[in-house]
Parts: sequence; C-alpha cells; structure tokens
Amino acid sequence: MTLPARVKMVEVGPRDGLQNEKQEISVATRVELIDRLSAAGLPVIEAGSFVSPKWVPQMAASEEVLAQIERRPGTVYSALTPNMKGYERALEARADEVAVFGAASESFTRKNINCTIAESLERFQPLLEQARRDGIPVRGYVSCVLGCPYEGDIAPEKVAEVSAALLEMGCYEISLGDTIGVGTPEAARRMIETVAARVPMEKLAVHFHDTYGQALANIYAALQAGVAVVDSAVAGLGGCPYARGASGNVASEDVLYMLNGLGIDTGVDLQQLAEAGNFISAQLGRESNSRVARALSG
Amino acid sequence: MTLPARVKMVEVGPRDGLQNEKQEISVATRVELIDRLSAAGLPVIEAGSFVSPKWVPQMAASEEVLAQIERRPGTVYSALTPNMKGYERALEARADEVAVFGAASESFTRKNINCTIAESLERFQPLLEQARRDGIPVRGYVSCVLGCPYEGDIAPEKVAEVSAALLEMGCYEISLGDTIGVGTPEAARRMIETVAARVPMEKLAVHFHDTYGQALANIYAALQAGVAVVDSAVAGLGGCPYARGASGNVASEDVLYMLNGLGIDTGVDLQQLAEAGNFISAQLGRESNSRVARALSG
Repeated sequence: MTLPARVKMVEVGPRDGLQNEKQEISVATRVELIDRLSAAGLPVIEAGSFVSPKWVPQMAASEEVLAQIERRPGTVYSALTPNMKGYERALEARADEVAVFGAASESFTRKNINCTIAESLERFQPLLEQARRDGIPVRGYVSCVLGCPYEGDIAPEKVAEVSAALLEMGCYEISLGDTIGVGTPEAARRMIETVAARVPMEKLAVHFHDTYGQALANIYAALQAGVAVVDSAVAGLGGCPYARGASGNVASEDVLYMLNGLGIDTGVDLQQLAEAGNFISAQLGRESNSRVARALSG
Repeated sequence: MTLPARVKMVEVGPRDGLQNEKQEISVATRVELIDRLSAAGLPVIEAGSFVSPKWVPQMAASEEVLAQIERRPGTVYSALTPNMKGYERALEARADEVAVFGAASESFTRKNINCTIAESLERFQPLLEQARRDGIPVRGYVSCVLGCPYEGDIAPEKVAEVSAALLEMGCYEISLGDTIGVGTPEAARRMIETVAARVPMEKLAVHFHDTYGQALANIYAALQAGVAVVDSAVAGLGGCPYARGASGNVASEDVLYMLNGLGIDTGVDLQQLAEAGNFISAQLGRESNSRVARALSG
C-alpha cells in the first residue's frame, strides 16, 4: 500500500466552517483569517459563498472579503456558487475558482431544495458552460457520500453516479463529503474505490466531518486508496446541523499533523496553521476543536 | 489486508482514566461506573490500582471498589500492581488479573522511577513468579512506544526489546502505550510490525491516547497490522500530564463506533457504553470527551 507523496490541502474553514457557526463574523475577521491561512501555506482556500444572505447570513459580504484579502501568489481563492447569479458575483469578486454542490441522497436533495438529484445537477449546466468559456475551474461537491440524515446508508454506486455526472458536466475535481460524519474507514475505502471506477482517482478529494470522531481514520483509509486531496477546516470550524453539539469539519491542524507524521508533503506550516486556528477560536470565544492545537497550546 | 473478525476491548477508564482526572471520585461512583461498563458487555475492565494513595490519591480504596462491584460472570476485573505489596492487596481484593508497567524510554524511566528500564523490569520478577504460582494472569504495559516527553522519538526495536522481556518474564499480553499520543498511523504500523517479530501478534494490545487526535487512525492501522486487543477509556477519561488541556485516552465509544462500522465483533453495546460515559462525565461535571457520545446525545 503506497501513500501519496504529496497531498493538496483544501481549507474550507472560512466558508463551510464559518457558515455553520452560530455567530456572525465581521468582514475584517474573515479577511484576517484567510490571510493567516494563506501565510501558513495552504494552496486552496474556500473564501466565501455567493448565496443569498437571507439563507446564509454568515456568508454575506463575501465580495468585501474577497476584495480585502491580500492575494498571495500561488494561492487559489475559491467560492461556493449555487447558481448563475452567484457565479457572476464570484467572478466580479475575482474568485480564482468556484464550486457547485450536489448530493448523493435523493431524500436529502428533496428535503433541501425540493427536486431530484438529476434536476439539481441540470441547474448547474449554464454555470459550468459559462465557467468553461471564462476559463474558471469548477469544483463539484457531493454530500452525504457515507450516509444521509433522512435515508441512512447511501449506495457507493449512487455516489459514483453523481460524481461521474459532475465530472461529465465539466467539474475538474470532485469532493466527496461525509456531511454528517457517520462513515468509518472501510466504508470510506469501498465508496472511494467505487467512485474511482468512474472518476480518475487524481480528480477525487475527501471532505470528512468529525461528528463521530472518525474523520482522521477515514482520511487515512482514503490516502491508502490513493486520494491525494483533502478538505478540512482550521480549528475544526463549523457545527453539524443534524447533530446538536457535535463537531463540524475535521480540523486542518489534526489532518496536517497526521500527514506530517506519514511523511506526506503539503507545503503547509503547522505552527502558523495552529495560530490561525487559535485566532479564529478566540474571535468565536471558544476553545479550538483541533486536538493538535489544544495540545500545542498546552 | 484482513481486519480481525473480533476485537477484545479492554476498558481502562476506571483506572488509567480516573487516575489522571483532577477530581477525586467516590467509591460509590467508581463502583457504579464499573457496573455500568460490565453491563455494557466490556470483557475486561481495569478496576483499580494498588499503589500508594500518597502517589495516586484517585486510586485509594481500590479494595473497597473491588469489594462492592457486582461481579458479572465472564467479565475480567483487573488491577494495576506496581510491586509485591500491591499484588498481595490486589489478590486479597479478588482481582482476576493484574498488570505491571514498563516503559520503552530510558529517560522516562529514569525521570519517573530513577532506574534503568532493565532494573525496572527486574523489580517485577518476584511478582510475576508469585502470580504464576497463583494462576493469576499478568498483563504488561509498555509506555512511550511512539514517543517520549523527554527524548522524543523511540526506536521500534527498543519497544520490541522491552515487550519481549515482559513476555519472557511471564506476561500473557503486552499493551503498547502511546502515552503522550504523538504517534501517527504509519509509525504505529512500523512499531507493531517490529514488536511482532519478537512477540506473537495475538499477544499484543494497543493503548493509544488521543492527545493529537490520532488515536482512531492509529488503531485502524494497528487492526490492519493484525492487532485484535484495543485499550480505551469510556468518555475519553483521563488527561495528559505532559500536555495541559489535552485529552487523555481514546474514548471507548469512538473506538466501538469504528469497530462496529468495520464489521468487527466486540460484544459491547454502544448505547449502554455511551450511557456509562455520560454518567461519569456528569459526575465529573464536564462534557464527555467522546465525539460519538456527544453526537448521540445531540
């Protein structure tokens, strides 16, 4: 079993993390967080989301955030764009990359946006076509890849089908999200192997939540399967709307500590990363959800 | 890679956990915790420690604890015994099994008990001889197997040497402890493979602390290597004296959740286990350190 020599860490704290925090965070704080993360060497930072502030007030003013950050050469600043209008706003704000969002669960899709998975993907078609013309890379998220809050287990073939559809539509990378954090390592490995039969392994990323403490074990299983792109959020930002009191994204510090220990190159500095996490935790007035950060501050 | 079909979970919360908690816990609470753990199906419960209460006040009255628990048929109640006097007390208290404690780090041994590793093991010789005559199984702990707070990295060969010495002296099982929780999966795998060259794999247990959040990933690597005995503490009881604010033992609930997901049989009931953890967390007046317990209570 060979592990990848290098892993691309995709930092989702400023978007997937903060949007699930209860408190609203000022533009200045969001900007400082992003600047600290880029200084730590993170190659991709999800900096905001161009959705209606009516639905996600935490992501309001993403334009201002993107306007005020210090653009570090080589860092990719991405944004979530649910539709054409969001895409246009993201482009205007000079996002380097955008992301669209699908799910592997019909019940989840139905409950959330009241349509089928196929219909939900169709809606992204104009966005993906425009992005191709504009030369903007589009990332595709697939949520509920290891379980759904409404229907429980999800067939790996369903994840493969949605992933293949997003690839076909033009996404350059597919991020497989265990949105509710219920997965365990062998289930993760089987799901990834099933998806990899239809999407090249090098185009796959994993996006695990640590709700049940399984995220690092699952990431280790994913690395063994050949995945070399890992999403995480500094300080474990974000909660889980489906399990009160549960933790959110796997903490970037904990992922990096493991990757360092595995001898995998990332280009990210653990100390600076932990400081960025401590900064935002202090702003939120709570302890970091990263065990590494807590141990290092001990 | 084949995972074991069955894993023996060794519950160390009432000893290794509580002895590292700052608060003293009443005998009644310790008894109730142990009874809840046996009811949940845990096959081995480390119930106390026969050390001087001067050194470990949390473990005072281990006799009373062992006298008051409800002995569940089939459950093994073990106790830590640092010397002959402790062994005799444990025997009188009807411990089913005892445990002795070595370290793979010369600096750690020197700092803690002011002797060499070899000298520290020699001291257990009379205890092991007496236990053999009494028909009492002795477990051997090896601490600092993946790192030492004083000397950093520990050579896997050193761990193998100490493990082989404990086996030779008569220990029936060797528990490999990452006392400060610094290990990562590949280091754990290499260490285990090195030890397994001198101690049969079926005699090895892993005992990982979650200080850096790596414990479950390390356990998964250990299972892949062939280890089928896993130590853990309900609610992640215990702190880490070498990293303030850091978490202690890996939480039994989180381990069991992973083992269930991997299709590995343990005979332990997750819901009852989580309730035992919630009980002791409430007694300690704090949140459980188990992410599974927090998610289930959400």
